[in-house]
Amino acid sequence: MNQLQRPFSTAEMRQRINNTKHRMQASDTDLLLVSCPANIFYLSGYDACSYYTHQMLIVSLTEDQPILVVRKMDELGALLTVYMKPENVLSYGDDLVGADSSHPMDFIASIIRSRNWGSKSISVEMDNYYYSARCHEVLTSQLPNANFKDANRLVNWVRAVKSPVELEYMIQAGKISTQAMYEAVNEIAPGVRQSQVAAKIYYREICGDDAHSGEYMCKPPLLPTGRLSATPHLTWVDAAHKQGELTSIELGACRHRYHAPLARAIHLGAPPTQLKETATILIEGLTAVVESVRPGVTCGEVDGVWRRVINRYGVLKDSRIGYPVGIGYPPTWGELTYSLRSSDRTILKPNMTFHCIPGIWTNEWGLMISESLRVTESGALCLCEFPRELIVK
Amino acid sequence: MNQLQRPFSTAEMRQRINNTKHRMQASDTDLLLVSCPANIFYLSGYDACSYYTHQMLIVSLTEDQPILVVRKMDELGALLTVYMKPENVLSYGDDLVGADSSHPMDFIASIIRSRNWGSKSISVEMDNYYYSARCHEVLTSQLPNANFKDANRLVNWVRAVKSPVELEYMIQAGKISTQAMYEAVNEIAPGVRQSQVAAKIYYREICGDDAHSGEYMCKPPLLPTGRLSATPHLTWVDAAHKQGELTSIELGACRHRYHAPLARAIHLGAPPTQLKETATILIEGLTAVVESVRPGVTCGEVDGVWRRVINRYGVLKDSRIGYPVGIGYPPTWGELTYSLRSSDRTILKPNMTFHCIPGIWTNEWGLMISESLRVTESGALCLCEFPRELIVK
Repeated sequence: MNQLQRPFSTAEMRQRINNTKHRMQASDTDLLLVSCPANIFYLSGYDACSYYTHQMLIVSLTEDQPILVVRKMDELGALLTVYMKPENVLSYGDDLVGADSSHPMDFIASIIRSRNWGSKSISVEMDNYYYSARCHEVLTSQLPNANFKDANRLVNWVRAVKSPVELEYMIQAGKISTQAMYEAVNEIAPGVRQSQVAAKIYYREICGDDAHSGEYMCKPPLLPTGRLSATPHLTWVDAAHKQGELTSIELGACRHRYHAPLARAIHLGAPPTQLKETATILIEGLTAVVESVRPGVTCGEVDGVWRRVINRYGVLKDSRIGYPVGIGYPPTWGELTYSLRSSDRTILKPNMTFHCIPGIWTNEWGLMISESLRVTESGALCLCEFPRELIVK
Repeated sequence: MNQLQRPFSTAEMRQRINNTKHRMQASDTDLLLVSCPANIFYLSGYDACSYYTHQMLIVSLTEDQPILVVRKMDELGALLTVYMKPENVLSYGDDLVGADSSHPMDFIASIIRSRNWGSKSISVEMDNYYYSARCHEVLTSQLPNANFKDANRLVNWVRAVKSPVELEYMIQAGKISTQAMYEAVNEIAPGVRQSQVAAKIYYREICGDDAHSGEYMCKPPLLPTGRLSATPHLTWVDAAHKQGELTSIELGACRHRYHAPLARAIHLGAPPTQLKETATILIEGLTAVVESVRPGVTCGEVDGVWRRVINRYGVLKDSRIGYPVGIGYPPTWGELTYSLRSSDRTILKPNMTFHCIPGIWTNEWGLMISESLRVTESGALCLCEFPRELIVK
């Protein structure tokens, strides 16, 4: 791949902007301020590890192309990656980085005022990681005549249905995830340090396969082990795996920021009966979910399929069983829109993609086995291909 | 290491809380709400990849220990890692995750009200990644009698001076960073995919060395190459390294969340004269900085040492040359307090640690060579040990 080749055609980028503008019109938004790095990448093509400083994509209903604002040292990186014309990339100086008396949002506000957008209806991403309370405070005080409201994951919803090219990247990522899981299973053994297994996963996820390089994942692989398997989000510890221990591995390789997560559980030695039985129930429930997914079904109905299976066995679970997946930047590969849970009435459509991860945790151990799914015209396909079982080694 | 052994003694954790309370008193703060994962870890010991959902540490002047609030599924992980008594860990249900009509901050507000803290002076981390505009909106509307103000990186400032144990972890991380850089230099060659070099770096950083496991880094290694070396924050691309190309590698291994960053530049084949000369100037400037650092010197003065060297050669640089480093969670290992730049009057003290990375970028190429430094009683020590030179291979 040429260093400056873009992962999506200009036509596809324009389609995304158009889809976004339709939603803006429907919500009476003149100006959309996008802080979320995944949404910025989706609408502009800009992909850099620069989001630790403030940046913003400005989408106006009256403009053909959005405006990207980054820190000065990131301007060239933006110019080399965005689909827009160069004059739509603006930058602020380093004096605004980590300053007490001024803020990058002062600069954003001045851009908005200079284009006479200061009295417009402006939607912002109120609950995004990269739109801090201070950002909102500065913008609202600098633009007192604007009508601010919550964009409420507007762009995230546009992202829900994937294009053929997006699906292709997710399939590529799924192949790498599958291979990484095989190598993890191969590596894990009594006496092997947990970090060694994690390092093998990273190596494969980043190196990729013969066809494609991997990219950095938005979060680390997790492999909670033994007592810690009961905690879904602790990372590996400075210890070796032991005979008789359970490990749940959750990983997800990345291509052009699109992730394909996968979780499997491994037991070193013959597993106790309760664990074996729970795994059988979990797999029965997960398989029933996979078979139930098709266009027209709601997320709540999919969750119901899962609950009917586990209720039959008296298993309890009080958390959602999945979430949409695609573009990921730290700290999440979740799209933050719908959830697979009883209260969610979102209707599944072809080419939606989600990670179904119905983990079951007791106070002593926990079990994670998952599939990343793509809704097809008539059912669902798994993005990874790994036997759906409790692995015993 | 036992799986449940904590990286810091209870005495050290208490000292951190006391130091924080002193700053709270000085800023008329009754209640400090901590959203930043690095600050939460620093003050409680809680370290999990759960920060993609909202969590909060509540520090009250009138309480001995802080209160940690996490999502229900993360409660056990918190109980196993914090230094506080179990009743100081609280959790909210999954119905508050990604919901439109309610928010985890509703739960935080109810805790504050239930303890009669609703009319207190409350400081929040206004510009932190994990304190969104929505968080602030919910808290201020739910606690109308409270006096809210910006904590303004209060805990980050407490973190600036490191304890002996913190320094020990940074030295361990520095050893792994050094080894990872050697392996990267060894791997890079014409025809080798960029992702392969990145994968080698990850492998060593995560695997660690014989003595210690590595942990996940808060951001990926960067290795901008060729034309892209002019952009500091683009990641590797799906292409092979070529003869005649420059690569700047920036990496940083992690121990107990403490990072030791390191950057070096590599040229495949004899470098052009301008590049060689710029590297010589950069190294002269960096070395002058290292030799100038000692307690009592200000950040502005350190920056001045750098500028005097590059001005002599007519080299321009319009961004800061460094920032404090230590605990890192995505998206940064920076402590977000002082900066090495002319306007910064922060006085260096023993056991402050910072990353001096005076990158020089032209429109065609860029050069990064750095050191992570620890201020000693009389000077500075480097956390990594790698020859300070433009590597030619």
